[in-house]
Amino acid sequence: MADTQIASLDRLTTAFAKEMPEVNQIILARMGSDVPLIPQLAGHLIAAGGKRLRPLLTLAGASLAMTQNEIEKMPAAAHYLSAAVEFIHNATLLHDDVIDNSDQRRGKQTANALWGNEASVLVGDFLFARAFELMVETGDIQILQLLASASAQITEGEVKQITVQNAPDSTIDDYLSVITGKTAILFAAAAHAGARTAQADQPLCDGLHEYGLALGRAFQICDDALDYLSDAGTMGKNAGDDFYEGKITLPVIFAYQGGSPEERRFFDRTMGNSEIEDGDFEQAKQIFDRHHAIERALDMADGYVEQAITALQCAPECEMRIALIEAARYAARRPS
Amino acid sequence: MADTQIASLDRLTTAFAKEMPEVNQIILARMGSDVPLIPQLAGHLIAAGGKRLRPLLTLAGASLAMTQNEIEKMPAAAHYLSAAVEFIHNATLLHDDVIDNSDQRRGKQTANALWGNEASVLVGDFLFARAFELMVETGDIQILQLLASASAQITEGEVKQITVQNAPDSTIDDYLSVITGKTAILFAAAAHAGARTAQADQPLCDGLHEYGLALGRAFQICDDALDYLSDAGTMGKNAGDDFYEGKITLPVIFAYQGGSPEERRFFDRTMGNSEIEDGDFEQAKQIFDRHHAIERALDMADGYVEQAITALQCAPECEMRIALIEAARYAARRPS
Repeated sequence: MADTQIASLDRLTTAFAKEMPEVNQIILARMGSDVPLIPQLAGHLIAAGGKRLRPLLTLAGASLAMTQNEIEKMPAAAHYLSAAVEFIHNATLLHDDVIDNSDQRRGKQTANALWGNEASVLVGDFLFARAFELMVETGDIQILQLLASASAQITEGEVKQITVQNAPDSTIDDYLSVITGKTAILFAAAAHAGARTAQADQPLCDGLHEYGLALGRAFQICDDALDYLSDAGTMGKNAGDDFYEGKITLPVIFAYQGGSPEERRFFDRTMGNSEIEDGDFEQAKQIFDRHHAIERALDMADGYVEQAITALQCAPECEMRIALIEAARYAARRPS
Repeated sequence: MADTQIASLDRLTTAFAKEMPEVNQIILARMGSDVPLIPQLAGHLIAAGGKRLRPLLTLAGASLAMTQNEIEKMPAAAHYLSAAVEFIHNATLLHDDVIDNSDQRRGKQTANALWGNEASVLVGDFLFARAFELMVETGDIQILQLLASASAQITEGEVKQITVQNAPDSTIDDYLSVITGKTAILFAAAAHAGARTAQADQPLCDGLHEYGLALGRAFQICDDALDYLSDAGTMGKNAGDDFYEGKITLPVIFAYQGGSPEERRFFDRTMGNSEIEDGDFEQAKQIFDRHHAIERALDMADGYVEQAITALQCAPECEMRIALIEAARYAARRPS
């Protein structure tokens, strides 16, 4: 069982080394348009890559259902759906970067920095519409239901994020509902709907949904924690962004809840009122250290990893299940 | 036949006086969310009303198919679809106002002016996602196909609009492809898909699609021309907005194409380079007068009205067909 302690996406990525080029081809074809700015802008973001985690989850969901149903060939619907979830993800990234006024993503200039907010908003809308066109091609209206509902929940999570911004007295529940919407729901829908394309039974669909939710939460908690640990070089985004923008994440909530009156005043001033002075970011990290806030956030992520792994008991024992276990551990990896 | 010279939405609105409250109820229910800012912001825009032209077109399409097929009761799918097209329309309005940085719409402050761009972008996304959820409830995957494709074309039209902004040497074709995308496609899809909910035959579907396209073009051409004729009081938006933003519409194209070198230099400076001085807006209108640019634009709109009316020959002769003819004439009404 030593193998299942591996924290890596390698097994998952390798398993679909033959499928992903097909998905990438659909992605490229479907971001085409007579209006050249669209493929230009979309290509800048999508071609830059990223881990393609959501399409991989869709293919993994389909693959587990294939094992279950002894299907030999990946259904074409799984490819369309994989491209669709990547489009939805990238549509939200384009809009996020506009909202956050970000100038860097994945170590490159953002689309809004290069082409302006207007084009980023519209090309996001375009990708979202194209995602639905791709889903129509799966021919399965329940998949459309699943992803339409997920898309609504994504935006609810993001709007909620705005409403709790600059509020260091937010609760853990507030935070969880934000990250469930903005991240975990799409992971869940991607894996679940993928399984549907290969006629998975309901327990497998439900289990993969659970897996995706837990994986997404672990992933986002760690991503948020790393914002206080890394620098632009390793993250591909600016370290401390969340602090400077007043975006309330788990370490802040832990530190604030357990903090002294003076520590609370510090967060009220900096993250609450955006009155930030030199050295404040370093001081925030010192307060986190006193309260083991980062460590506790990462522990919570570990809990979700365990939930994710438990949810996989719905799946047949196979190589793909191991790949998903390793992917779950990867989501909550410690910085090296 | 004197009646068919009437230019009014009254007959259309009256015909659905009983149906629209049901549509409005679906609209209200589906903009609900646990995140209070969402119904607050969406409600500000949607409850403000507008003419609900797109839902009316959907109901009219269904109604014509009902006459054709002797169906007695409006299918529930037509109600869901009506709410869906209104959501798509309002999602684009929210994003448009962010893009144009508008502070007034329908005589009220815009959502972005009140709640900021971030929330407007996200609530637009939310409405778009909810539109697809509503369409799923029609149970007809071809309707989803139609509206997903229309949604992609809307954004293509809007991106194209950005790329021809500040270019007074744009062609009539450029302009037509912009307005076809940003306005006419949704009119077409609304009427066409409405007919599908009541099992219309293909010629009726195609005819209504043509009708919607032509109606939408007439409507947008007039709306753009009126921007040079009205003031904020009658339009519910600021007069001359297009001029000050360098948005190239038909009167500009006509005046530029037929203009003297000096007149062209005027548009190059003002709308091309955004170097606008006091009195320039009045001067633009004088140049338009010399070239009958507004009149020619309105004539072109009249041509589309005739196209729209011709397209209705696919429909059975009935009260609803007359209502749609009157609506088409209304789209190209002259300012009184």
